[in-house]
Amino acid sequence: MSYSFGKNFKVTLFGQSHSEDLGIVIEGISAGYRINKDLIRKNLDRRRPGKNKFSTARKELDDFKIVSGEVDGITCGALICAIIENKDMKSKDYDNLKDRPRPSHADYPAYVKFKGFNDIRGGGQFSGRMTAPIVIAGSIAEDLLLKRGIKIYSRIKSIGDEEDVKLELKDINEDKLSNLKNKDFPVFDHESREKMQGEILKAKEDGDSIGGIVETFILNMPVGIGEPFFDSLESVISHAVFSVPGIKGIEFGSGFAASKMRGSLHNDEYYYENGEVKTKSNNHGGIIGGLSTSMPIIFRTAVKPTSSIAKSQRTISIRDKENVDLQIVGRHDPSIVPRALVAIEMITAVAILDLLMEGKR
Amino acid sequence: MSYSFGKNFKVTLFGQSHSEDLGIVIEGISAGYRINKDLIRKNLDRRRPGKNKFSTARKELDDFKIVSGEVDGITCGALICAIIENKDMKSKDYDNLKDRPRPSHADYPAYVKFKGFNDIRGGGQFSGRMTAPIVIAGSIAEDLLLKRGIKIYSRIKSIGDEEDVKLELKDINEDKLSNLKNKDFPVFDHESREKMQGEILKAKEDGDSIGGIVETFILNMPVGIGEPFFDSLESVISHAVFSVPGIKGIEFGSGFAASKMRGSLHNDEYYYENGEVKTKSNNHGGIIGGLSTSMPIIFRTAVKPTSSIAKSQRTISIRDKENVDLQIVGRHDPSIVPRALVAIEMITAVAILDLLMEGKR
Amino acid sequence: MSYSFGKNFKVTLFGQSHSEDLGIVIEGISAGYRINKDLIRKNLDRRRPGKNKFSTARKELDDFKIVSGEVDGITCGALICAIIENKDMKSKDYDNLKDRPRPSHADYPAYVKFKGFNDIRGGGQFSGRMTAPIVIAGSIAEDLLLKRGIKIYSRIKSIGDEEDVKLELKDINEDKLSNLKNKDFPVFDHESREKMQGEILKAKEDGDSIGGIVETFILNMPVGIGEPFFDSLESVISHAVFSVPGIKGIEFGSGFAASKMRGSLHNDEYYYENGEVKTKSNNHGGIIGGLSTSMPIIFRTAVKPTSSIAKSQRTISIRDKENVDLQIVGRHDPSIVPRALVAIEMITAVAILDLLMEGKR
Amino acid sequence: MSYSFGKNFKVTLFGQSHSEDLGIVIEGISAGYRINKDLIRKNLDRRRPGKNKFSTARKELDDFKIVSGEVDGITCGALICAIIENKDMKSKDYDNLKDRPRPSHADYPAYVKFKGFNDIRGGGQFSGRMTAPIVIAGSIAEDLLLKRGIKIYSRIKSIGDEEDVKLELKDINEDKLSNLKNKDFPVFDHESREKMQGEILKAKEDGDSIGGIVETFILNMPVGIGEPFFDSLESVISHAVFSVPGIKGIEFGSGFAASKMRGSLHNDEYYYENGEVKTKSNNHGGIIGGLSTSMPIIFRTAVKPTSSIAKSQRTISIRDKENVDLQIVGRHDPSIVPRALVAIEMITAVAILDLLMEGKR
Repeated sequence: MSYSFGKNFKVTLFGQSHSEDLGIVIEGISAGYRINKDLIRKNLDRRRPGKNKFSTARKELDDFKIVSGEVDGITCGALICAIIENKDMKSKDYDNLKDRPRPSHADYPAYVKFKGFNDIRGGGQFSGRMTAPIVIAGSIAEDLLLKRGIKIYSRIKSIGDEEDVKLELKDINEDKLSNLKNKDFPVFDHESREKMQGEILKAKEDGDSIGGIVETFILNMPVGIGEPFFDSLESVISHAVFSVPGIKGIEFGSGFAASKMRGSLHNDEYYYENGEVKTKSNNHGGIIGGLSTSMPIIFRTAVKPTSSIAKSQRTISIRDKENVDLQIVGRHDPSIVPRALVAIEMITAVAILDLLMEGKR
Repeated sequence: MSYSFGKNFKVTLFGQSHSEDLGIVIEGISAGYRINKDLIRKNLDRRRPGKNKFSTARKELDDFKIVSGEVDGITCGALICAIIENKDMKSKDYDNLKDRPRPSHADYPAYVKFKGFNDIRGGGQFSGRMTAPIVIAGSIAEDLLLKRGIKIYSRIKSIGDEEDVKLELKDINEDKLSNLKNKDFPVFDHESREKMQGEILKAKEDGDSIGGIVETFILNMPVGIGEPFFDSLESVISHAVFSVPGIKGIEFGSGFAASKMRGSLHNDEYYYENGEVKTKSNNHGGIIGGLSTSMPIIFRTAVKPTSSIAKSQRTISIRDKENVDLQIVGRHDPSIVPRALVAIEMITAVAILDLLMEGKR
Repeated sequence: MSYSFGKNFKVTLFGQSHSEDLGIVIEGISAGYRINKDLIRKNLDRRRPGKNKFSTARKELDDFKIVSGEVDGITCGALICAIIENKDMKSKDYDNLKDRPRPSHADYPAYVKFKGFNDIRGGGQFSGRMTAPIVIAGSIAEDLLLKRGIKIYSRIKSIGDEEDVKLELKDINEDKLSNLKNKDFPVFDHESREKMQGEILKAKEDGDSIGGIVETFILNMPVGIGEPFFDSLESVISHAVFSVPGIKGIEFGSGFAASKMRGSLHNDEYYYENGEVKTKSNNHGGIIGGLSTSMPIIFRTAVKPTSSIAKSQRTISIRDKENVDLQIVGRHDPSIVPRALVAIEMITAVAILDLLMEGKR
Repeated sequence: MSYSFGKNFKVTLFGQSHSEDLGIVIEGISAGYRINKDLIRKNLDRRRPGKNKFSTARKELDDFKIVSGEVDGITCGALICAIIENKDMKSKDYDNLKDRPRPSHADYPAYVKFKGFNDIRGGGQFSGRMTAPIVIAGSIAEDLLLKRGIKIYSRIKSIGDEEDVKLELKDINEDKLSNLKNKDFPVFDHESREKMQGEILKAKEDGDSIGGIVETFILNMPVGIGEPFFDSLESVISHAVFSVPGIKGIEFGSGFAASKMRGSLHNDEYYYENGEVKTKSNNHGGIIGGLSTSMPIIFRTAVKPTSSIAKSQRTISIRDKENVDLQIVGRHDPSIVPRALVAIEMITAVAILDLLMEGKR
């Protein structure tokens, strides 16, 4: 089992979708830091379901409390534990789900792994709801990164076949990116946004769901962060990002396109600009040899279509050992991309801060 | 720093391209196991450079010895340490490289990270040569997996724009896959192979290099392997695979194509076949909720074009703080894809065995 | 920072004496286990202050709740988090203590370590109260050990100069030891108990405190538990036990007396008895080469006198940079030995279970 | 299995007494450090057997080489691997030992743990010889500690019933302690040394062995080193020290004597002396609440008499399932105390540096 991530800034996640509490324990914060609770609330709000017609109508109240590690809002050097209480959680009859595993959900392998004792209520420990405590830890990480000038932004790059504008290296600047944080549906181009949202609404109307791609940018990373051999920046970021439910792929810089390129085109040549080392192109996505260079870190994440759909599906009855129909009830995000984006950003903040603390030793 | 990987089957990698020895320490092997040295030699041979015209003409002698942890070829419960001696390694004048970082190599960020003390000889600890000890540990892992019936295969899916045939789910069977292990250039389709090799030779003739995609298959994984939340199968495999030099992306199952799909198409419906649980399609690539299902695990890895090319490039002189020309001499693989394939397979074996041991506790 | 202990049965402790909650996260429990809450309550009650005149008159309500990891009382494979809420905790003015560090308390080094931000209320994270969550985890460990037949007992071996009877190897049997669990003041000999309690009361009357020795026995350990080299049984037990506040020494088997012995006397000779391997004596305390033998594991722990005493003491004023008087108010245990005994037993259970799980891999 | 120790300055130990090589991998050393090989050689020489009549006549050649992690004697940021080659090691017939476990040796529990596959040659991985690589890592740690002004010294406090002079707090100064490093048999008082050595020679003449106590001092530790809760200074030091073969007990400061003391006597009162915080007495041995205070750290370690003695002993024959005589041949230290002292000092250096690096984060 591993519910912990990080070595220096280390988080341990506990809870299930419907457990009494869910929460996160955070290790590695120095004494004397005032926890930025406004940023936590802001990011929880970005992740929160039920905000608009592009996400589920189901509402979650993500009030959190810090139950240890601070005195009068200032960290005291003890472990931080943050908790989200599950008030008035209605746990309906989930026995049906245990018998009839939902396609593309963890139900079936979890049933086998935990010998039938897995918590099926709301998806148990495999629920997307587990990313709420991640947002708490990620917000603290983001705040600590911001104090060092390091900034993480993400945009929705595509929904289904609809894509946002292509980004040139020269376009990656703080002004343009920072604006993404204020958007419910962070996309550069207005027209593209309309089309992407249209894709989601169409899927919703059809009782279906739709996938997409998130693109993430990290600015102002110091050079040389990342560890050889096994804790390369890509290794650690991908490890973190694949823990977010629903991710199927990740690529850095040129990514899969690199497989079609020749070295003479792909290699990013160094040059000095005002005494700073830069590269003319950024196919390496800010990472070479697993270490940060001076360029922006860029990676893209493939998010699958929401597994829960209204349409009838085929599955098995474990009890009856036969093939059956399954109708999933309840309200679900027609696309998890906008909310996965926040989780990706937050877990990336945790990963980056952890490596940064390692590099500073 | 992190030169270790795994919790149960744990490897620690030491050495540099030109250090006196390079090697790997392996923890987690029970006493009473006869180390399969034939398999180690076979895999080292698959990875070995200088075999044919598609790889570098430079030869490496990868004789290894097990210096601890066994008595008369049988493990005794002590740590295994395997060593490759660097005999007669000529360390030419590498000072030039320290001053003029090669594009797409770790030279520049390593110089900054290690304050100029990094070992530049042959790429130091960032050299692809570091994957040779990985092959030793991976071969032991592979052998231990084979004893449990678990098999890992890979093919070159594409080189540049040339692709091997698309694989249908029904085509994924041991007979077809096992044949890949005997090929120098593991591809299904003969004609595709010719074209791919043609791409490599063309790049070579142009003093250039070319990238490609490796596709990996894991058969007969028990259900429920992988750990929630942070050590999902995807998290652990990607962490491992991104430690292989030159990897820019990874995708599982449908991967990035999932981003364009609707849930009703993407979801893999369960059914019983002769009492076994299967899915009709395998968009999930054998992994749901971070856990193995009963289906083959499939992932694809994007390999960038070799960084070292004969063509002249532009870079900086750190000493002179100016932009300069760089001509890389020596012989290099025009494509690292065939050799990276072996490293990917081997590190995957380590990752899978480690998770399997966790799951069996 | 390290608030975690164990690799397989892993606990993470959070909270401070007066934080909103304190608690413990427990990793490594299989799904399908019914948590023995009666045993938790019983052990919390054994540790609870305010029970009698030998302990502090201060009362603590140690109601606990399991907030994650179980469904209807049965573990589901998710992390267990257990919480003790600090209801109505009065945090008086502790500023005085921050200025005037109490002798033998963590106040001064914690002040330096945490740059003055340490939580001084009730001793903060250095409080003996932190052992309450340890009791929760330890009780679960004890219950899981009991299922394997492994039993841990402790007695108060001495208080000040008053000692309980010496124990011969033949006297170490379950009947005799199991009775210790039912005693408020676990000692074999009635008369010795009276004298020991007399020592405590005398110290109390003098506004002083008194130390003592706890002796712990582990029965029915399988042979070969413990890991070479760094995780010897002694290494892991001592690591665990020294985390209990107030411990100054530990010895296994003959312990410090071994330093005065010759090998011919100290060596425990093997013999067969009814087909079982035993030793005639047990100077090795059940551990050789860091591994369990077939004999009972025996160790003794030195507990210092309670640091908080009513008598006036000298200390410094950090603010005024001068030497001052200190009068500690409040009610304190005149001897922490009886309560430390429970904490030692509980953390030992955690350590033993963790090693046992390692050995079974 | 755990052959690793430390989090920041992390060592991994491999090899057996008679394996081809034995060695240690060291993580956590910054690039640009010149490894102090003279100090390594000096400490290896202090530990080396066969120097005089108080140790075994058996000679070991402890030539070491650094096979990775340095370029021209300067660390380059890659893992350090140091190796001791076992040249011309004669592995006589050890089958007898596997059948007839030596009392007080790891033979029997190792046989059970490793299902009969344990390496019995020279004690295998349980051999005292495994401390030789520890000396290499410990010397590097010592050198890095010396650069920060931190010094570790040890003396033989007693052999059997013969004790060195008692040390007063005022006597603990660098001049007096530093002299210990130059002595073969580090004791303060000349007459006591004669008596102690007499004890050893008497034991030797009798075909027997004798135990003793080592006392260790750490000077100039910064305040606040050590981690709450589980990685207290005592926890980490004891964990390290109990990995040295033959240790039966450890006590810090007043140690077991604290169990007989009252708080008013035991508490060490603070005072200012020339602006520095000190305590009048040092019963806490430089550690309170698991953290270093400003006082010297003092601990004592009980070393058992050498297990291998010339005298005939009784043991079992595992093959024949009967009780038999055992005559151990070969030459052995009549007392391991002088050599254990070096191992204790070295592993302490590793532990202290590791905690120091944690504290500095």
